[in-house]
Amino acid sequence: MTGIGNALLDVIIRDHDDLHQRLDLTKGIMTLVDLERAASIYAAMGPTIQMSGGSVANSIAGVAALGGTAGFIGKVSDDEFGDVFAHDMRSLGVELDLAIAPSQVIATGRCHVFVSNDAQRTMATYLGASNQLEGDDVREDLVARSEILYIEGYLFDLPPSKEAIRRLVAKAHEHETLVALSLSDTFCVERHYDDFLDLVTNDVDVLLANEGEALALFRTPDLGGAFAAIDDLGILGVVTTGPRGAEVSTMQGVVHVPAAEVDHVVDQNGAGDLFASGFLYGLAIGADPVEAAQLGSLCAGEVITHLGARPEADLEELAVNAGLL
Amino acid sequence: MTGIGNALLDVIIRDHDDLHQRLDLTKGIMTLVDLERAASIYAAMGPTIQMSGGSVANSIAGVAALGGTAGFIGKVSDDEFGDVFAHDMRSLGVELDLAIAPSQVIATGRCHVFVSNDAQRTMATYLGASNQLEGDDVREDLVARSEILYIEGYLFDLPPSKEAIRRLVAKAHEHETLVALSLSDTFCVERHYDDFLDLVTNDVDVLLANEGEALALFRTPDLGGAFAAIDDLGILGVVTTGPRGAEVSTMQGVVHVPAAEVDHVVDQNGAGDLFASGFLYGLAIGADPVEAAQLGSLCAGEVITHLGARPEADLEELAVNAGLL
Repeated sequence: MTGIGNALLDVIIRDHDDLHQRLDLTKGIMTLVDLERAASIYAAMGPTIQMSGGSVANSIAGVAALGGTAGFIGKVSDDEFGDVFAHDMRSLGVELDLAIAPSQVIATGRCHVFVSNDAQRTMATYLGASNQLEGDDVREDLVARSEILYIEGYLFDLPPSKEAIRRLVAKAHEHETLVALSLSDTFCVERHYDDFLDLVTNDVDVLLANEGEALALFRTPDLGGAFAAIDDLGILGVVTTGPRGAEVSTMQGVVHVPAAEVDHVVDQNGAGDLFASGFLYGLAIGADPVEAAQLGSLCAGEVITHLGARPEADLEELAVNAGLL
Repeated sequence: MTGIGNALLDVIIRDHDDLHQRLDLTKGIMTLVDLERAASIYAAMGPTIQMSGGSVANSIAGVAALGGTAGFIGKVSDDEFGDVFAHDMRSLGVELDLAIAPSQVIATGRCHVFVSNDAQRTMATYLGASNQLEGDDVREDLVARSEILYIEGYLFDLPPSKEAIRRLVAKAHEHETLVALSLSDTFCVERHYDDFLDLVTNDVDVLLANEGEALALFRTPDLGGAFAAIDDLGILGVVTTGPRGAEVSTMQGVVHVPAAEVDHVVDQNGAGDLFASGFLYGLAIGADPVEAAQLGSLCAGEVITHLGARPEADLEELAVNAGLL
């Protein structure tokens, strides 16, 4: 499986005092910020923890942690954060197609993450080098060798990335590689409504979304309407519904898959990304959609028990113990 | 209070599989490594978490988190890790005297930390820019304004730092600033036995050590002998004894102060550093040695409940609630 997405380093604080509010950041969503605003946000934050992040990058790290063969396409700078991002992926065995921008020109992208006491996370992202991914940066052979190409919706915020996505999607169709799309977040859906609808209608085989994103894309008031639209398109859809779990389309209709039971949720950051890891890896190894969603729930359940959006435990071992691998 | 020490970024993994052994790193201690070995160690590590570190820097961060006025003297590079180190200190209100090396020449120092399942930590440190702290880099006015100057024993690994320490100690004596020394680790004591004994005999007012370090410096088989030597020198000594707590010298003899009760120890990294935060801050605000050691235990008890050597909780609030501030 190959993912294309924003290569970011997460810069995390526990936001006990709701600093995100004083910074005018909307709770629970990702806001894009420019370099100047990023600097002022960082200056206002207390001591931080740095970890690799990026939505589809997190999903790909999860696939590798499940024992899958995984590749990632993105862009960093030749600075230390870029080195950390590349190291963390390589150390999991992920094959990287990482374009490198010169650090004199632009820095590696970073996502400032505020983890509230109720485990919700609020994000302010400076895209940096990841913003400069272009068509010429991408290696199409990675996609040709993959069962699935997984595309990050956030990439549509970057005009040059659209060309890269177009090329990869064409390559995917050539090689019977499934095209999967993450809608990323509700505001992202609103920003790129036409692009997303066009991609979902013409190119996507597997659609991953949370409830808000699915309703925003299909402009329906309930998930029934969203799944009717997914059915009409003849694609596979899975919609995560937070602590309730996920709904997944099957030949026999929409099936509910409960979330993993978790004692104490520390940080919801990465829940959707790691659900995607399990779900897509499951599909890639021939699981049916319900089994795949169960594997997704297991992975999401691990990542919310600790700070950060990358798995800490051996997901493959967890999945084997749970009888899912 | 002002500290002088290595300005490092910690690069942390949970070492479930005893990777440190395969890398020939001795469990529980800090090994200095050169750039080449640091690169091969990092390449062997899985995905990491980056947080500010450095022994005395951790202590100073703890003093600031207790509400104390604190300064730090050290050296980083003008790279992203250097920015993170400076940010984390400044965001706590620490006054920084941070020399900056050019990143084309040398990188910010980093400490690779392996946290074992039993919460022990093994460290491999590439000193980088912190290795280049020189006499001319230090601002003596910080020391003149401080109740205590806290010196990191590890600094003696860096020949140019000795001159910086000499200058600061002279300034401290001029201004009745107490001179406190951390022996850092047993191997460090052995490497710099003569320097340490000279400093302790002629300049130090407060000595901080763990059991192994105290026995190594005074070449005695038990703590009784170490405290007899501390008494002979006419200085204040405190020796931490891990989960047992600490022994502290008082006018009425050596007093045992128990460790804070902790449900689950995650990572011992920073326990000694944060004990020093509480102990030295206690002394600075006029607590007696036993009260100061109790504040030290409280701070150490917080830092071992989570990954990383910097406090996560509001130490001032914890100390007030415990009736120690």
